Amino acid sequence: MRRLYLFDTTLRDGEQSLGITLNVREKLEIAKQLATLGVDILEAGFPASSPGDFESVKIIGREVKGITVCGLTRCVKKDIDLCAEALKEAEDPRIHTGIAVSPIHMEKKLRLKPEQVIQKAEEAVRHAKKYLNDVEFYAEDAFRSDYDFLAKIFERVIAAGATVVNIPDTVGYATPWEFGELVSYIKTNVPNIDRVKISVHCHNDLGMATANTLAGVMAGADQVEGTINGIGERAGNTALEEVIMAMYTQKNRYGIDLAVNPREIAATSRLVSSITGVPVPSHKAIVGTNAFMHASGIHQDGILKEKQTYEIIDPEIIGVPRNQIVLSARSGRHALKHRLEELGYKPEDSQMNTLYEEFLLLADKKQEIYDEDLHVLMGTGIPEQNGIKVKNISVATSGKQSATAAVTLEIQGTEITDAAIGNGPVDAVFKAIDRITGKEVRLEDYSIKSVSRGKEALGNATVKIFADGNYYVGKGVSTDVIDASAHAYADAISKLN
Amino acid sequence: MRRLYLFDTTLRDGEQSLGITLNVREKLEIAKQLATLGVDILEAGFPASSPGDFESVKIIGREVKGITVCGLTRCVKKDIDLCAEALKEAEDPRIHTGIAVSPIHMEKKLRLKPEQVIQKAEEAVRHAKKYLNDVEFYAEDAFRSDYDFLAKIFERVIAAGATVVNIPDTVGYATPWEFGELVSYIKTNVPNIDRVKISVHCHNDLGMATANTLAGVMAGADQVEGTINGIGERAGNTALEEVIMAMYTQKNRYGIDLAVNPREIAATSRLVSSITGVPVPSHKAIVGTNAFMHASGIHQDGILKEKQTYEIIDPEIIGVPRNQIVLSARSGRHALKHRLEELGYKPEDSQMNTLYEEFLLLADKKQEIYDEDLHVLMGTGIPEQNGIKVKNISVATSGKQSATAAVTLEIQGTEITDAAIGNGPVDAVFKAIDRITGKEVRLEDYSIKSVSRGKEALGNATVKIFADGNYYVGKGVSTDVIDASAHAYADAISKLN
Repeated sequence: MRRLYLFDTTLRDGEQSLGITLNVREKLEIAKQLATLGVDILEAGFPASSPGDFESVKIIGREVKGITVCGLTRCVKKDIDLCAEALKEAEDPRIHTGIAVSPIHMEKKLRLKPEQVIQKAEEAVRHAKKYLNDVEFYAEDAFRSDYDFLAKIFERVIAAGATVVNIPDTVGYATPWEFGELVSYIKTNVPNIDRVKISVHCHNDLGMATANTLAGVMAGADQVEGTINGIGERAGNTALEEVIMAMYTQKNRYGIDLAVNPREIAATSRLVSSITGVPVPSHKAIVGTNAFMHASGIHQDGILKEKQTYEIIDPEIIGVPRNQIVLSARSGRHALKHRLEELGYKPEDSQMNTLYEEFLLLADKKQEIYDEDLHVLMGTGIPEQNGIKVKNISVATSGKQSATAAVTLEIQGTEITDAAIGNGPVDAVFKAIDRITGKEVRLEDYSIKSVSRGKEALGNATVKIFADGNYYVGKGVSTDVIDASAHAYADAISKLN
Repeated sequence: MRRLYLFDTTLRDGEQSLGITLNVREKLEIAKQLATLGVDILEAGFPASSPGDFESVKIIGREVKGITVCGLTRCVKKDIDLCAEALKEAEDPRIHTGIAVSPIHMEKKLRLKPEQVIQKAEEAVRHAKKYLNDVEFYAEDAFRSDYDFLAKIFERVIAAGATVVNIPDTVGYATPWEFGELVSYIKTNVPNIDRVKISVHCHNDLGMATANTLAGVMAGADQVEGTINGIGERAGNTALEEVIMAMYTQKNRYGIDLAVNPREIAATSRLVSSITGVPVPSHKAIVGTNAFMHASGIHQDGILKEKQTYEIIDPEIIGVPRNQIVLSARSGRHALKHRLEELGYKPEDSQMNTLYEEFLLLADKKQEIYDEDLHVLMGTGIPEQNGIKVKNISVATSGKQSATAAVTLEIQGTEITDAAIGNGPVDAVFKAIDRITGKEVRLEDYSIKSVSRGKEALGNATVKIFADGNYYVGKGVSTDVIDASAHAYADAISKLN
């Protein structure tokens, strides 16, 4: 069995594609869950890109232990200095530096000759090695490069001290056969390749990121890069949960050993979706709500006779309990805690009082509490940062006229009420909130989704706003659509500084 | 160049996974668009499964010309009789019959010996041949079958007259290498294989449906089966648009000739999403809204210098115009028509009056009209069936109390008003509509998404209801969330008989 290393870049390649800025607290929460899932390397950000990214890498490096924490840089001295500085307190730090190597990128984007590119790469690796030992080198757009040149640049950066060489299919253009050949070529044609690990980094533009990644592993890659739920630039990165489960379902075929804990997959997927505001598609492999659902009569019949007729993965393996349990206001604190644990949460005793109170309030409204409700209950556990609380909302609309809304917010202990008219009640509520907070905010995106069943479905509202030159996401949950929307909007605003 | 045939099963394998029943009108609209896209074979349904499916296959067979229309059956005489009956008026009909061939399916689901399975398959093919010439045979769960047995059953059904043999990876368990080997094995070990076409049918449970399908083509498959947007059982079927574009971006590699028109891909994807109520994930390869978006600074910089640094597909090839145009109330009828055509619509002159009126109403509210708004405008063109119109809505909420709503509907020319209280205004509106229509309806799913930009974003509401033993989807659009919700709910109810 050979060891395969999982390199997660949800917080770097994933986050940079979102058009939103996650704050340090949100990134730290995802980072801790990734450590629980058991990825080996966590790319926490690109420190030179913004002070926020610098701060995130620094705090994740300080707080998350037992895992390699990595920061991205270009082959630029200042990038590397900042990255090393950000990683100072990390237990096991790695600098991930690199440069584009395809003719089109070198000519059109970098405007450098191939030999200049190699020199920059060597210098960057040498500079990074002054700070720490573990230096990964990425050859951007490797798949469209001249393979001779690629082998040459890898040989030189390995000589300069790189410990990992990363072969990215930056534009998602490869098929598995071609990508496997590329990895084999590098394994055969780089004389000092045995001194380093080979990493593969694929994108999903043609829907083949997972298969390409597997092709890389079969050709000898030691490390795979990807993100949770496959978020990332354009059509996204390789979905790590797909690679993990493809290996897991056929362990013997690959002869691969992974340090990961698949039971944490569902919880990790939910957390990333909830914090980024990017929903998990219902048909998403492994983690979509339909992934284990059997709709047609023939399939249902088969499943009743023998699960394996239509099921290749037991949902419990990824942390989705198979049995359905419905809780109610008569369910005790112990029953609630037990179910939360089955769903992959680890509620501490100190949390249980508040959780049980919130649970009873919800049970009072909904009568029946499903797993989906419990996920929502756990997802709203994050306190609002700057203390903007929605205390009261009244709305009125009549016929074709504008809607009016009166909103009371509590901001840092003080209650303020104001009213506004709008094009419909949600618009009126948002405008009343704008008047109270006095913030210049532009609404960029807005969605509501019912997330549970039973008498009164919970609505989960997500808003994306633009303010102070940045995007922020807020979330709110309620059995009332207007109420959920107001909470989401206030949540987003509370993230402004 | 060899010809590759595209077999679309959006209306069969896709629809059966939805948990909703599309009506004949909706299926016909999708079928016509698939013909415009240029698929070769259209699987229209499973006639024996329900009278609605029978009717759909019949009407699609009658109305959609220039394409093979196919119906699914089990290896059951009655299924085949019904399918042949439904296909009577089709120009180029095909019966798609088959049976499970893996040990687990034969033992646990069918409870038949292998030789009995072969006999049933032969009889079914012979029976189908009495009605028509073109008979495709599927070997369900072929990937997990004994390959010797699979070769034997194929040999026998080909001798019995099958014209196509279909190799499905029913549970989505294959990797590209294994799937390619399977297709090669069949090509080599079935003596009469040259008399028929080989088809491949993959599922996406491990995220590899597209790569597996390509592996099949490289090993010699003549036909690929899939759905638009990859909808289907569990994690879905192969996404046809991914296969098309993977071939298209590397035509020379595959030496494949396709009869498809890629410019219709975006329009087809939108139509299927709009009618099924299944959103296209934002990161979906080829058709997601992010598929052509470049978020990070480095990527944007590259794209500005030279598009091909980060773009392997020109969005115009799939029918997404590259240039952004913003229309307003000052835009003329001609400008509107021109932009609609650029977006892939073919508005008839007779439609343009109504469309332009609706456009002006919207422009009045929103000032700026983006492409997203035009898609919505075109999507709401379908008249409400049984004439339930939402005429007026008033809602009032106050603090923590219940919301009240008064709703006026026009049902078959008569206006009726009623009121109800609810847990929030949307709930109150739905309850008032229930009172007016007198229908027993259970709300199963509910979502709202903003779909455009500008001063007043449009909200697109989708509701899924359960009534009379079936599920129905309704859609509504408005700049007011409550209004959009009411329209969607009324739309769903108008689909009940």
